[in-house]
Amino acid sequence: MKPPEFLQQRQQQIELALSAMMQKRQTRIPQTLWKAMHYSLMAGGKRIRPALMLEVYQACGGKGDIMPVAMSVECMHSYSLIHDDLPCMDDDHLRRGIPTCHVAFDEATAVLAGDSLHTLSFELLSEMTVDKDLTPSLVQKMAVAAGAQGMGGGQVLDIEAEGRVDLDLLDVERIHIHKTGMLLRYCCEAGALLAKAEPEVAHACARYGEAVGLLFQIADDILDATATDAELGKSAGKDQAQEKSTYVSILGIEQAQEKLQEMLEIALEALEPLEEKAAQPLVLLANYIVSRKT
Amino acid sequence: MKPPEFLQQRQQQIELALSAMMQKRQTRIPQTLWKAMHYSLMAGGKRIRPALMLEVYQACGGKGDIMPVAMSVECMHSYSLIHDDLPCMDDDHLRRGIPTCHVAFDEATAVLAGDSLHTLSFELLSEMTVDKDLTPSLVQKMAVAAGAQGMGGGQVLDIEAEGRVDLDLLDVERIHIHKTGMLLRYCCEAGALLAKAEPEVAHACARYGEAVGLLFQIADDILDATATDAELGKSAGKDQAQEKSTYVSILGIEQAQEKLQEMLEIALEALEPLEEKAAQPLVLLANYIVSRKT
Repeated sequence: MKPPEFLQQRQQQIELALSAMMQKRQTRIPQTLWKAMHYSLMAGGKRIRPALMLEVYQACGGKGDIMPVAMSVECMHSYSLIHDDLPCMDDDHLRRGIPTCHVAFDEATAVLAGDSLHTLSFELLSEMTVDKDLTPSLVQKMAVAAGAQGMGGGQVLDIEAEGRVDLDLLDVERIHIHKTGMLLRYCCEAGALLAKAEPEVAHACARYGEAVGLLFQIADDILDATATDAELGKSAGKDQAQEKSTYVSILGIEQAQEKLQEMLEIALEALEPLEEKAAQPLVLLANYIVSRKT
Repeated sequence: MKPPEFLQQRQQQIELALSAMMQKRQTRIPQTLWKAMHYSLMAGGKRIRPALMLEVYQACGGKGDIMPVAMSVECMHSYSLIHDDLPCMDDDHLRRGIPTCHVAFDEATAVLAGDSLHTLSFELLSEMTVDKDLTPSLVQKMAVAAGAQGMGGGQVLDIEAEGRVDLDLLDVERIHIHKTGMLLRYCCEAGALLAKAEPEVAHACARYGEAVGLLFQIADDILDATATDAELGKSAGKDQAQEKSTYVSILGIEQAQEKLQEMLEIALEALEPLEEKAAQPLVLLANYIVSRKT
């Protein structure tokens, strides 16, 4: 299944904005560092996080330009991938079909490129002009979602879980809510808040985001177990090789696929407070995540 | 020379606030990660950055509680030390007299503890309530000072300079303005802005901060060349061993000491727009940095 057309358009729009944003900064950043940041940030990827934010914003009736906020979360995601790939972490050599940052450059540069994209993420958020009064709250929400209480903590739980065979479904879910769910939740909540959605609607969008985060992970686990390196653009079958507890290792492929359908229903139910027509792209997005092949 | 008494009081006040802030978060962060963050953040240190901010705030007539902003910059500093010490960077084993984070824990935990303190820094900044309208601008200023255009970029310049013997004074100064000066500049400017100082005064404080940053570095270079491991609580004589270009390697000890006095005068002159009595602690602070032995 190809991405829906509106998502492809979003991706292009986001790529262009990211590229212009990086160009603007080129002369103010040491060259090697800029190249490493640019290399990882512009290495493709599905741009799901900013796309989700932009779609939620539109679905909630937002009409302004929230691209700085959308780019901000993509920089945050990109930083986390660079650091997760480091030799002392997952030691990955391939990402999106090309060498990972520390392989293409070196380890010190990769650490610093990750750090710099991390800081840039907050810099971009501070540049949002649609509703300046929301900035403190968005900075706080993004920091909690991305930091030790969220994504960063999730990575620690993930590392600690390696090689352990006694994990159950709740343990695995806890890892992924932290590692993926909270930042996706933030994306959707931020999109709704920026569009001045009613609290009930903003909360619904946040729940949708969290469900989409788990959807994403279950789909990833299934792909890791069933796809090839070439299809994925990264090393496949790694979970099993590393004896990692995943939805697939705990449930088996068939039940993992059932779980995926269940989670899709949860995501779609969360959208009920939104107008049906406005929510349509969010429905398509969730369906695309379930059926994507890479 | 012992730190002036008001600085010792500030340090205690900051230690207590940092400790309470970390305690509050303990149950919401995976245990290993929390311990590593706590280990590095609470491992002493002079707390010069938050102390400077609090003193500038007071010197400019501020009466509110800006401790979240002060703690924020200390978390930023602490993150940068953890990452700078990593094996792929400076590979340091000793910091403030105790093992560095990656030695006390492991490399992956140190990367993530640094990352988490980095995010926490922005989280704390978002919690400032003294003047919420200032938050976007402070987030932006701190991100620029700490990111690829500032401290992060400075670390890249520093790494690239290693082993090069053709650096001159301007090159070394450029490294340190980025690596140390810009964040100290931000501390002083933020203190003034939060106290609603006139633009001229805020600008003067910013210049004072940048000069103090260079003061600090020149003093560090001199200490590295003249003090022992035990006095410093870290490896001394490292600059020479690594053939690093420093103020001392380029100027020699005597001229580096003259440069230190010159920079002290620049820092003190910058304070002229402030009331003399109010500026007194800032004068003492600059003098202390020049004459400190550790």
